[in-house]
Amino acid sequence: MKDYIVKDEWNIIEEGFDPSLSKISESIFSIGNGRMGQRANFEEKYTGDMLQGSYVAGIYHPDKTRVGWWKNGYPEFSDKVINAANWIGLNIEVNGELLDLNVVKVSEFRRVLNMQEGYLKRSFTAEFDSGALIQVNATRFCSIVDDEVGALRYEIRPLNNNIVVKLGVYIDGDVRNEDANYDERFWKEVAKKDIKSGAVLTLETKRTAFWVTTAMQYEIYIDEQQAELNEQLIEREKFISKESNVKLEKGQSLVIYKYAANLSSENHPKELLESNAIKILESVFKKGFKHLKYEQSEAWANKWKESDILIEGDVAAQQAIRFNIFQLYQTYTGEDARLNIGPKGFTGEKYGGVTYWDTEAYCLPFYLATADQQVARNLLIYRYKHLEKAYENAQALGFSNGAALYPMVTINGTECHNEWEITFEELHRNGAIAYAIFNYVRYTGDNNYLEQYGLEVLIGIARFWSQRVSWSDAKNQYVILGVTGPNEYENNVNNNWYTNTMAVWCMQYTIDTIGLVQQSNANRYSDISIKLNFNLEETGKWNHIIQNMYFPEDKEHGIFLQQDGYMDKEQILVKNLPASERPLNQKWSWDRILRSCFIKQADVLQGIYFFEENYSEDVIRKNYDFYEARTVHESSLSPCVHAILAARLGDEKRAYEFYLRTARLDLDDYNNDTEDGLHITSMAGSWMTVVEGFAGMRVRDGKLHFSPFIPEKWISYAFNIRFRNKIIRFKVTKEEVLVDNNSNEELDIVLKGISIKLAAKGTYKCSLIGKN
Amino acid sequence: MKDYIVKDEWNIIEEGFDPSLSKISESIFSIGNGRMGQRANFEEKYTGDMLQGSYVAGIYHPDKTRVGWWKNGYPEFSDKVINAANWIGLNIEVNGELLDLNVVKVSEFRRVLNMQEGYLKRSFTAEFDSGALIQVNATRFCSIVDDEVGALRYEIRPLNNNIVVKLGVYIDGDVRNEDANYDERFWKEVAKKDIKSGAVLTLETKRTAFWVTTAMQYEIYIDEQQAELNEQLIEREKFISKESNVKLEKGQSLVIYKYAANLSSENHPKELLESNAIKILESVFKKGFKHLKYEQSEAWANKWKESDILIEGDVAAQQAIRFNIFQLYQTYTGEDARLNIGPKGFTGEKYGGVTYWDTEAYCLPFYLATADQQVARNLLIYRYKHLEKAYENAQALGFSNGAALYPMVTINGTECHNEWEITFEELHRNGAIAYAIFNYVRYTGDNNYLEQYGLEVLIGIARFWSQRVSWSDAKNQYVILGVTGPNEYENNVNNNWYTNTMAVWCMQYTIDTIGLVQQSNANRYSDISIKLNFNLEETGKWNHIIQNMYFPEDKEHGIFLQQDGYMDKEQILVKNLPASERPLNQKWSWDRILRSCFIKQADVLQGIYFFEENYSEDVIRKNYDFYEARTVHESSLSPCVHAILAARLGDEKRAYEFYLRTARLDLDDYNNDTEDGLHITSMAGSWMTVVEGFAGMRVRDGKLHFSPFIPEKWISYAFNIRFRNKIIRFKVTKEEVLVDNNSNEELDIVLKGISIKLAAKGTYKCSLIGKN
Repeated sequence: MKDYIVKDEWNIIEEGFDPSLSKISESIFSIGNGRMGQRANFEEKYTGDMLQGSYVAGIYHPDKTRVGWWKNGYPEFSDKVINAANWIGLNIEVNGELLDLNVVKVSEFRRVLNMQEGYLKRSFTAEFDSGALIQVNATRFCSIVDDEVGALRYEIRPLNNNIVVKLGVYIDGDVRNEDANYDERFWKEVAKKDIKSGAVLTLETKRTAFWVTTAMQYEIYIDEQQAELNEQLIEREKFISKESNVKLEKGQSLVIYKYAANLSSENHPKELLESNAIKILESVFKKGFKHLKYEQSEAWANKWKESDILIEGDVAAQQAIRFNIFQLYQTYTGEDARLNIGPKGFTGEKYGGVTYWDTEAYCLPFYLATADQQVARNLLIYRYKHLEKAYENAQALGFSNGAALYPMVTINGTECHNEWEITFEELHRNGAIAYAIFNYVRYTGDNNYLEQYGLEVLIGIARFWSQRVSWSDAKNQYVILGVTGPNEYENNVNNNWYTNTMAVWCMQYTIDTIGLVQQSNANRYSDISIKLNFNLEETGKWNHIIQNMYFPEDKEHGIFLQQDGYMDKEQILVKNLPASERPLNQKWSWDRILRSCFIKQADVLQGIYFFEENYSEDVIRKNYDFYEARTVHESSLSPCVHAILAARLGDEKRAYEFYLRTARLDLDDYNNDTEDGLHITSMAGSWMTVVEGFAGMRVRDGKLHFSPFIPEKWISYAFNIRFRNKIIRFKVTKEEVLVDNNSNEELDIVLKGISIKLAAKGTYKCSLIGKN
Repeated sequence: MKDYIVKDEWNIIEEGFDPSLSKISESIFSIGNGRMGQRANFEEKYTGDMLQGSYVAGIYHPDKTRVGWWKNGYPEFSDKVINAANWIGLNIEVNGELLDLNVVKVSEFRRVLNMQEGYLKRSFTAEFDSGALIQVNATRFCSIVDDEVGALRYEIRPLNNNIVVKLGVYIDGDVRNEDANYDERFWKEVAKKDIKSGAVLTLETKRTAFWVTTAMQYEIYIDEQQAELNEQLIEREKFISKESNVKLEKGQSLVIYKYAANLSSENHPKELLESNAIKILESVFKKGFKHLKYEQSEAWANKWKESDILIEGDVAAQQAIRFNIFQLYQTYTGEDARLNIGPKGFTGEKYGGVTYWDTEAYCLPFYLATADQQVARNLLIYRYKHLEKAYENAQALGFSNGAALYPMVTINGTECHNEWEITFEELHRNGAIAYAIFNYVRYTGDNNYLEQYGLEVLIGIARFWSQRVSWSDAKNQYVILGVTGPNEYENNVNNNWYTNTMAVWCMQYTIDTIGLVQQSNANRYSDISIKLNFNLEETGKWNHIIQNMYFPEDKEHGIFLQQDGYMDKEQILVKNLPASERPLNQKWSWDRILRSCFIKQADVLQGIYFFEENYSEDVIRKNYDFYEARTVHESSLSPCVHAILAARLGDEKRAYEFYLRTARLDLDDYNNDTEDGLHITSMAGSWMTVVEGFAGMRVRDGKLHFSPFIPEKWISYAFNIRFRNKIIRFKVTKEEVLVDNNSNEELDIVLKGISIKLAAKGTYKCSLIGKN
């Protein structure tokens, strides 16, 4: 755990330059706009420890997987969103000496991620061997208005002498992935083009043949006067640069504005990539940096208006929740149903920038409540589009007749994990995808989605489960053997309670949905039946499974059992684990972790979270008390579920502890792994912790329910919720709960169990404690 | 399955050239001498599908392992005995055309592996595009007299025209492993030296810095007259060749004798490698090919005198058992305790030429009964020498206080498997290593071994098991969680019956051995106690475990349960599996195999085989009937155990079927994988099937017991058994059993349950059926 980020309500601030923290800061200060993103690398050359990372959404390479001995069913390729051309690059020599923060003497270093306006700022003073002293101020952003555009302003001011600056403004496509199974380079060059004060570079991904064109153009001002430069073209394979020399007198200011466009063949015809990039660049160039930055701040202001959570009295918590919301919207804006949310977004290479069950299980509620419902719908459509692949994935593993098994790790619908011993048997993703449909429809009331898309997906998933269960003569019940549950510190277990629960629920929900669509749109139902070769008789087997599924339990403790045999493990509590042995995944051998009772992330509790209404408070409490004591939370996805259940059980203190752990996970580098990139998907869990945990928000019977409390340290908190085309503002203070209905229609909500009708534009207020 | 090998009692014969069988034959016709070995590649260039393979015992390279995401406890390197310099190479051009059986027209192709005399012979006629027709006869062997030496004779005879032969005689060290995780080349050149009619090449392995010097010298005869050649030196990196031109008239015979020495820095000081190689080569050169070949046949005759199994009436069975014995002795001669038996010997690259539990569980009985007891003792010493590493291996996985965990895959004592999902948790190797000590001592009566070496190993192993078990409150017994048993079609199971059984047995045997050594050699016992910091009180816990271990059972079927939950699997019998789905490992996805009831190789039955005396015939039969029906034998190690138990239960027909399956596994390419190399270790299982299965040999109370039958098709079978410095010959005909005591002392044996005293040099005879 670290504590170097200055606490501030709207900004992430680093003061002073510490190379040992550099990779962590590169992650934390990352910027992006959903279409492209990058780590907070320096514009100028840096020879210290770093991970240069710039990524374009949807542009991936199938890296050959790495397994000792390949077996049937293992994915052949591990698709990853790959490191793309570096468009921020500036090469700066001062009196012949390279500006490199690993070499020069750095002082007054300060880095700010301005979340309110959406840009990254950095300033420092550098002293060279020659004695020259310069001040640098750099600002850059990825535009959320023109999402193919990035821009930067880089100012150099000599403080003590006149200097000669040799300036190289470049695009470098000769990048390698840190994460490459066989050290392969993934790009080849298609073309380079020299344009005035700029350059264009087009690259192609080796196996997938995506083209990405990166174009740059720049202008230079000396003391606010545009300077004409005698620029020289420097080229090599996958690299293009413009070099020039500038003389600066002491105190003068050299400002470089660099604009870049990143266009991919996913959005433009290949033959037009170059010309379109130049066109976009021209229009951006005309707008100029100041205007672009103004647009950016306006656009972010709009985002914040809907999605902000305001916390008074706790700067660390305030900063953290905004950081989480900011990074989520930098990663995914919901405008393109081909895209999804990688566990690390554009902030690192771990998990390959591809999609896991995180999206459905953790991210969906955030987007449902803070954006137009089209955004969440697009996340669902993403999976609908992969349905054919899900049939293929299932067939490859021996299933048939329209069984659909979605991949655990994917970008294009094909399974592409690189880690057999955990991922292969995590079938529960198929449950999360069905649950997301349920969750979306419950929230939005958009039954039309079920007719048009949802039911097809659900039938494929139900068919999968009905084939994947097997009958145990010994138990005289159905069992599910050989799975890995959400708790990845187990492998190849039998009857994971969560998986069995999801399987049965999926089949029941599909049966229910069939009934619904039959009634609401008989023609569409008939079309689906024909398309899927579906006969209602299939549900006979589903019902038999639903009625005869085995669920492991421990009657003595009154708990659901994570899987068969869990109680045979030595029952040690996390509180009795010496700190020196944590985190287990760094201190213990893998087999020891597997046979221990320790749980990486919520498993049984994840199921209880999803289906809370089905369980009495006593059942929830017994399971929570039992499993929480054995959970090491070495997955970033774990604390939020625990926080919400702790809140549900009235353990406000624990709920708050879990909140800080999930919300400040990266800012404080809890797990000592922020340098690899941010835990983007678990950031949605921070939001859930406030909204579902502290405010106790649920959706039941088409209404929002709230059951709030306020953490001891907070003075108040408030957030907006979009719900069925209405926006309400929900605020909790030490004394009161205030609900504003910002819409022009009445709205029914349930507050602390009491139904309330909010008038159009009306406000409701009640005391926080007690009945009214 | 294939059937192209001509059946013959002493020879393996292939007639006609079929390129599609070429890689299979390369494996089958492999030659070796325990120190070096090679696949039956052609001397001349061959551009068809092939695996060039030549290996030097003990010379390995640590290849970086291939896993998706590395976790604590995974081996970092996968050591493999690597492909070494090709010393057989001849480059032959006839009238400017290359002799390449993939290009020329081949007829009268015949290949013979003469097992009686220990050489490989090949002849063919080749027709070139030019019309030139030549006959070739090639003979070669790896000397078992001078085990650093190989020799070949290669004869070319033009049949229709005068020809010009351009001859290149070379050593090629620019070889690559087919099995290389990252396509790395493992050798670098140290030196080359030109000598008269020869050359010397010294290579070094990259990470391990072993040196191997390969020296060659050759002579040429035309019509039995030695020819003086105008040779030209051709060199490139890791390659050295001597080229010359020879004119041959039609009908003349050109004979090339090529001698090679392969010396490694494991056996010679590096600085003397080159000179020693030249010295050895000189002496070999003096002896000449004919004499070397004579020595070879004499040496093999001696080996056969002790180890042959003579079968009358069944050529396929006779050929097979000799092939198995021949290949075992080509792989391991027992002269060097640093060496061991790779599952594929020197015949391919799969399994990396390193040591598995195969040695202890399958190979030991063969060497015990057919060679001086020093040979088996050396196999045990191999593990004794790795004891320190076994402590380290255990420590790396979290064990302490002198717990020893031997590796599942190793060459130098360090775990080096490359396949986490199967190998990591196969703890039973630790049991097999203890069992081998027991087996050796039971057979030889060499209690001294226990004092000097065995007890130290046993204490380390017992300590490991005592730490690896855990207490289950739920069961109120000890359990062993998270293992993989011998049946590798399961993974990460709890309470594998075989593993639990071995664990308890190991602790009991160690306690017994402690008692024995305390009595027989109190000083040595005291030394060991001090060395190992061992206190007798430790056995208190061991006894508690022995008395309170949990063993899974199924009372309904009267069987031991392979592991917890096995009866939850869908119980399908192998006979009901469609042929189109076999072998499972090629047809089914890995997860489907894991959750099926199908067993790769004997697991519970392996335990019953080891401890047969502990189980009633009824128990053996119930378990055999249950598990045999579910076993697909997709491990070569499986059929022999089943054969022996089938014989024990009187199912002579099944025993014979299993015999053929194990003995002709490679000759008939049962598993469609002989091209990868031969299944050397399971060849010992063929021997066991005859001796322990058909002849029913056991060792009990220091005596040999026999309980023979004869397979229906056989007229008789006979073999020698070395037992405690005596040799007996055991023969079974349709009517009689004949036992010759070839020693000068009396010998007590038990035949069909009746104790018999065999006089010195005496013979005993009784009828096969009935009591006498």
